[in-house]
Amino acid sequence: MQINGVPIDDTYAEAFPTWIARIIITAVTEEWAYNAAVEATGFATSAIGCPCEAGIESILSPEDTPDGRPGVAILICAAKKKIKEQLIERIGECIITAPTTAVFDGLPDAAEKVPVKLHFFGDGYEYKKEVGGRQVWAIPIMSGEYIGEEEFGIVKGVAGGNFFVMGENQMAALMGAQAAVDAISSVCGVITSFPGGIVSSGSKVGSNKYKFIPASTNEQYCPTLREKVPGSKVPAGISAMFEIVIDGLDEACVGEAMATGIRAACMVPGVKFISAGNFGGSLGPFKFELHKLL
Amino acid sequence: MQINGVPIDDTYAEAFPTWIARIIITAVTEEWAYNAAVEATGFATSAIGCPCEAGIESILSPEDTPDGRPGVAILICAAKKKIKEQLIERIGECIITAPTTAVFDGLPDAAEKVPVKLHFFGDGYEYKKEVGGRQVWAIPIMSGEYIGEEEFGIVKGVAGGNFFVMGENQMAALMGAQAAVDAISSVCGVITSFPGGIVSSGSKVGSNKYKFIPASTNEQYCPTLREKVPGSKVPAGISAMFEIVIDGLDEACVGEAMATGIRAACMVPGVKFISAGNFGGSLGPFKFELHKLL
Amino acid sequence: MQINGVPIDDTYAEAFPTWIARIIITAVTEEWAYNAAVEATGFATSAIGCPCEAGIESILSPEDTPDGRPGVAILICAAKKKIKEQLIERIGECIITAPTTAVFDGLPDAAEKVPVKLHFFGDGYEYKKEVGGRQVWAIPIMSGEYIGEEEFGIVKGVAGGNFFVMGENQMAALMGAQAAVDAISSVCGVITSFPGGIVSSGSKVGSNKYKFIPASTNEQYCPTLREKVPGSKVPAGISAMFEIVIDGLDEACVGEAMATGIRAACMVPGVKFISAGNFGGSLGPFKFELHKLL
Amino acid sequence: MQINGVPIDDTYAEAFPTWIARIIITAVTEEWAYNAAVEATGFATSAIGCPCEAGIESILSPEDTPDGRPGVAILICAAKKKIKEQLIERIGECIITAPTTAVFDGLPDAAEKVPVKLHFFGDGYEYKKEVGGRQVWAIPIMSGEYIGEEEFGIVKGVAGGNFFVMGENQMAALMGAQAAVDAISSVCGVITSFPGGIVSSGSKVGSNKYKFIPASTNEQYCPTLREKVPGSKVPAGISAMFEIVIDGLDEACVGEAMATGIRAACMVPGVKFISAGNFGGSLGPFKFELHKLL
Repeated sequence: MQINGVPIDDTYAEAFPTWIARIIITAVTEEWAYNAAVEATGFATSAIGCPCEAGIESILSPEDTPDGRPGVAILICAAKKKIKEQLIERIGECIITAPTTAVFDGLPDAAEKVPVKLHFFGDGYEYKKEVGGRQVWAIPIMSGEYIGEEEFGIVKGVAGGNFFVMGENQMAALMGAQAAVDAISSVCGVITSFPGGIVSSGSKVGSNKYKFIPASTNEQYCPTLREKVPGSKVPAGISAMFEIVIDGLDEACVGEAMATGIRAACMVPGVKFISAGNFGGSLGPFKFELHKLL
Repeated sequence: MQINGVPIDDTYAEAFPTWIARIIITAVTEEWAYNAAVEATGFATSAIGCPCEAGIESILSPEDTPDGRPGVAILICAAKKKIKEQLIERIGECIITAPTTAVFDGLPDAAEKVPVKLHFFGDGYEYKKEVGGRQVWAIPIMSGEYIGEEEFGIVKGVAGGNFFVMGENQMAALMGAQAAVDAISSVCGVITSFPGGIVSSGSKVGSNKYKFIPASTNEQYCPTLREKVPGSKVPAGISAMFEIVIDGLDEACVGEAMATGIRAACMVPGVKFISAGNFGGSLGPFKFELHKLL
Repeated sequence: MQINGVPIDDTYAEAFPTWIARIIITAVTEEWAYNAAVEATGFATSAIGCPCEAGIESILSPEDTPDGRPGVAILICAAKKKIKEQLIERIGECIITAPTTAVFDGLPDAAEKVPVKLHFFGDGYEYKKEVGGRQVWAIPIMSGEYIGEEEFGIVKGVAGGNFFVMGENQMAALMGAQAAVDAISSVCGVITSFPGGIVSSGSKVGSNKYKFIPASTNEQYCPTLREKVPGSKVPAGISAMFEIVIDGLDEACVGEAMATGIRAACMVPGVKFISAGNFGGSLGPFKFELHKLL
Repeated sequence: MQINGVPIDDTYAEAFPTWIARIIITAVTEEWAYNAAVEATGFATSAIGCPCEAGIESILSPEDTPDGRPGVAILICAAKKKIKEQLIERIGECIITAPTTAVFDGLPDAAEKVPVKLHFFGDGYEYKKEVGGRQVWAIPIMSGEYIGEEEFGIVKGVAGGNFFVMGENQMAALMGAQAAVDAISSVCGVITSFPGGIVSSGSKVGSNKYKFIPASTNEQYCPTLREKVPGSKVPAGISAMFEIVIDGLDEACVGEAMATGIRAACMVPGVKFISAGNFGGSLGPFKFELHKLL
């Protein structure tokens, strides 16, 4: 199978379940909602070493937010026992502190709810009100009032959808990955949580040499080790690859993001091969077969 | 004392010591160095609820980086016992994973050094080399090689330098705060770690009503509570205020940032008063008297 | 009539016909399509002193462009006799010169067509091919090949849809205008051609004092002249106003943009009045009555 | 001669004189100064088809502007007889119309001055005042007052400083060119006026086949024509090249920009050759020999 002359590996991406909250941040302008979203989704690339995975899902028109102001929707992905703490800390430290923000539940129809009681910050001066049909708390702050919902729907979504963009050199692979991220940004319900949406250093679980570390470089996919590592999976003519990792609300949107991203990457000159990562089914229950998606 | 007609309160900002590392991130273009810096400094507004305080200190020309590539310098501020873990996690999860990055120590002359051994990620395929006179590790990764120093100088710097920008309404105060942040961005050795550089909801230690929380709204500075709270410190005619909080490598640069930021804020129409926050000297040893700085 | 407590003037915006072309610019990434679009739509605020009016209409997903790459759609608005020259110059100097761009007609169903023969630049080495069902020219250039359609649909659209955002001070009015521009960016078929989408210095035709100039400040709407100019139209309590000017493909989309923008502006604290500009019907045939739109 | 393993052609860039004005735009925040600068420097890539060449020279701290506000300096380059008209139109249509802007002469020590009388826009309500030691006009406008100097120094500078970044494929060449632009942005006194600072389609004067056009593709530098054009100057192994064109206030700063940019481009993997464009001395009096610069 080929797209625009680029061979698509006959393999699948393996993904696993994660709990996901969707937070709608509004502010006086889109820029201020965006500033808060960037801070709240930072230090959140991979659940291996970060407290959660998080990213910007979409920009929202004022017509599509509960309070009629510009907004940004973010996803926060974590294990069920950790997601409440992450919501409290990231909303409390990164959004309430950001100028003019309000926060609303972005999954109001979810059956499962997480309480995020931040109104104590008001020290008794807080009060309840209604905004856009939502019950919110208004908390007096130095810049005026913060408005926020305190219950957030969570759903069991998909983490780790992925594909590899391989290039004849590093810049071709990078721009292919960037084109993929650009394309995925228009797909609803997903995030790419790594820096700029791209992973430069995919890993394997554990280490062969250093038993004390949880993850190490995936030497079979390292182009500079192609001649040194038996069984290298780096195709001939490939000198660099980047990985796109996608978390999303359900299988359908992760699959759509993968397909959209792969098609876009294949339009970039110098992109020579597309594959995906799996661990033979040992990691998780979701399989995204590239040839079926495309 | 007035600047451009804006009264400057006769008070001081109280600040306290923190340990600071300065990381130089380089990449193939400035944009990619910046993407890594944004991820690595996210979720890092305040040491109260975040694992550290962090922010972008400056953009570096290729002429000013060890490897002759575009760069961004970030500061990471934390207690001494926590800074090593933060360096490991933020470099490991947010910078090594970012496309084309390399990392160098931004305080090579500091007496105190922190080891940050990330080369184990190479699983034995890593090797030492020299780049720009620095001893670095080269780690094979899927996109090529990651280059990084593994020892970072740290200095005892200053956290919590601050001032308040008060406005006749919220938008005037916000734009005054933004002008201050714009001005501070040209001062070396400092960061403003909050979202977009601005704090909308300054806090006090503890709570009068809810004994179980570590911090709560500073009701004496809440404009909407001006008539309700005895001893309110909100001046007449002020309906909103934002705080700028500055961390920096030493007292001199924090003072310069405060002065530069205050002067810029006072140029914004509708800004009506400048003050600063202190706790009567109980919080920390550094006092920045506004009238002396300006 | 009020929105969020802000009175809406019982008046109308007067607008006039213009010819409009819609150009789809694609590139290897969204950023490069955007860079070309910014250059091509610069120096194009007002037909009074600029050679045309132009702006970015929307960001296009690769799924929505003829060649499957990220894209940006721009509108170029001019009199019929000038639009061909503007298309030739702006595509020729600002888009063909931009890295990796291709250009497609964004109004393929328009009855009226303008030929824009740029393939002569190929000096005989150019050739025809098909991309995404479009007949295009491929021109050899130093960076590879430029791909472009050479016939562009034009429609008789609407120029000068407008409204005024008035504030209790300048920063409130500015942020209200910014929120309006943010909201309008999600409406299809329209642009706001002024810097950042906002006009700070609305004008009247001609001048009372200087007969040799075509336009001058609209003194009846200048807040600093409120006490000096008989018949000032500046409402009490207003100290600044900004104008949003909208060009669009038809009356419906200009009306939708006005309504969406006004609603967003009214959410900004300190915005106190919304009005619109007209010349009593002498300027053009389109009337957008604010109370009907909202 | 090689830099980081990249051969530097033993040739020179040929450049020619141009008149240059330097405009300092200030605004309430850096973003608003930048918005005005982008509009005012658009449609200004090349004097061949645009009314002038223009670009952003530098971002200015409030400490470095006449009115203590954030600023952006732009350069406008044109023939002497055209520069006045360009200043009038671009300041009048793109900067006075932009929110909160003021304009100051950025070359106050230049011997030659150009009057730019925009105060007539005030229709008699304008008045003189002093700001930061400059004599300016204050013009009442709808958003408050516009402040502007009306005399601008111009100097005889250098247009057309250039170099070619050649890559083993298109993406490597593009990223090399981008790294060069990033590096040049820190050099004072220069601009790169093309979209994103990069030229994708360098031209020759006239055309061999179509006598009626002023410029056409430079077929000797087109990689896809390497086998078809006798005497092709495309080195073996090069499949794409981009040109960086630099205008600057004097020979020294153009030379510094060229050297800084070339060094940065050579750090990008896949960049394989650096050259420069000249017409054998027939175009202009300035020669920048690459080997002497570096």
